[in-house]
Amino acid sequence: MGDYTTVSVPSSKLLFRQLFEKESSTNTYLLADVTHPQKPALLVDPVDKTADRDISIIKELGLTLIYAINTHVHADHVTGTGVIKNKVPGVKSIISKASNSKADLFVEHGDKIHFGNLFLEVRATPGHTLGCVTYVTGDGPDQPQPRMAFTGDALLIRGCGRTDFQGGSSLQLYNSVHSQIFTLPKDTFVYPAHDYKGFTVSTVGEEMLFNPRLTKDEDTFKSIMENLNLPYPKMIDVAVPANMVCGLQDVTKKSCEPLAT
Amino acid sequence: MGDYTTVSVPSSKLLFRQLFEKESSTNTYLLADVTHPQKPALLVDPVDKTADRDISIIKELGLTLIYAINTHVHADHVTGTGVIKNKVPGVKSIISKASNSKADLFVEHGDKIHFGNLFLEVRATPGHTLGCVTYVTGDGPDQPQPRMAFTGDALLIRGCGRTDFQGGSSLQLYNSVHSQIFTLPKDTFVYPAHDYKGFTVSTVGEEMLFNPRLTKDEDTFKSIMENLNLPYPKMIDVAVPANMVCGLQDVTKKSCEPLAT
Repeated sequence: MGDYTTVSVPSSKLLFRQLFEKESSTNTYLLADVTHPQKPALLVDPVDKTADRDISIIKELGLTLIYAINTHVHADHVTGTGVIKNKVPGVKSIISKASNSKADLFVEHGDKIHFGNLFLEVRATPGHTLGCVTYVTGDGPDQPQPRMAFTGDALLIRGCGRTDFQGGSSLQLYNSVHSQIFTLPKDTFVYPAHDYKGFTVSTVGEEMLFNPRLTKDEDTFKSIMENLNLPYPKMIDVAVPANMVCGLQDVTKKSCEPLAT
Repeated sequence: MGDYTTVSVPSSKLLFRQLFEKESSTNTYLLADVTHPQKPALLVDPVDKTADRDISIIKELGLTLIYAINTHVHADHVTGTGVIKNKVPGVKSIISKASNSKADLFVEHGDKIHFGNLFLEVRATPGHTLGCVTYVTGDGPDQPQPRMAFTGDALLIRGCGRTDFQGGSSLQLYNSVHSQIFTLPKDTFVYPAHDYKGFTVSTVGEEMLFNPRLTKDEDTFKSIMENLNLPYPKMIDVAVPANMVCGLQDVTKKSCEPLAT
């Protein structure tokens, strides 16, 4: 029972808040560099219904929201990105280029998203959807320790996202998690987009030992994923079209630019 | 916007997990000293419905659960203490002496609850109920920094518990929060028993600035609390009798001993 059990959230530069949306059991994460004069902040996976809450806490804490980021095109809720962009001037939306959806900035594997002197590293983790990425806090002496991985639906606590929609592939997901997440230090915190059992965080080491799906071999994993018999996602027909335009359903044409990294 | 914005969770000795029960929006907290050979652990405010989840994660992490602690006699859910005591041999339940309920061990203001080389300090914070206490991680070089306050229903994030039942008193609650919680370092994390908006943590500094009730003067606070017009708590007639015996509804006589501190 090694080093995955040690716990501490990171460098005092980082302000970190986990926020929860009960209906879709979605986690939104707020990160900011509070030692930087502007206190630049970003949100990972905001939800439309709780966007006002997120804007309110950002304002109270005196942060400058610069990015609203999605790990992927969600099928179970509408992203808060559009609401936030409409209410907070200057915020840029970010999603992966591979998602084929609209946003202000697109990221690819290996890109870095800077906020103040901190950054997130982008790791491509397709399989739940074709465009899923995991955002990992930077590797370096000035970055939070232990590292933190925002895994979206690629890796959930003791679970993983389904692979039967949106370009999903169980084999691709298996390879993504094993090559891009399970290779991180074991004490890396795992912060997923959802949790349905009331867990808030896990670690890479814990999931490598106890994840009931991803500890199995590739063929067993494939078989598990093929036999989940999940219902058609309730929100998919509303959420996916909205999220393909990052929550800006009324905007038909948007300028898109690659993220300078 | 001072030091309340810095964030880091504490000493690497401490394993810390926040767990959530959706129906009653209750937070349960797991703390353990993972540098101690036995990895002694305690749970603050476990819920009956999620007791098996809590037991399971404790087992996976190789921890030894020694205490199941309540901040007060809850009116909105049945404590998980009874279920846990039945399933995990050796666990002692703890509640305040002032709660007038049953438990294995009783604590009073100023007591310390040791788990390994870490400890919680007991602060009497009556007002929501007569017996409410706040548990605060220790003050000392070997204890988690920033400190962490498990405030129960005395102080919620941007709110507080109602004061119209169970020996509640708005003036007493006001004085409790101001004298026992707002006197802690501003970067102390506030971990309440409930949150209904999806917040997971706040800080003393934040609540001193932004709590819409407790930033007011005593008379205004009293008036706010008298005019909440809240419905009769749905679960109170089931929860309070069960929680008065720490979730051991079938046990009529239990031995009780003071906590050696």
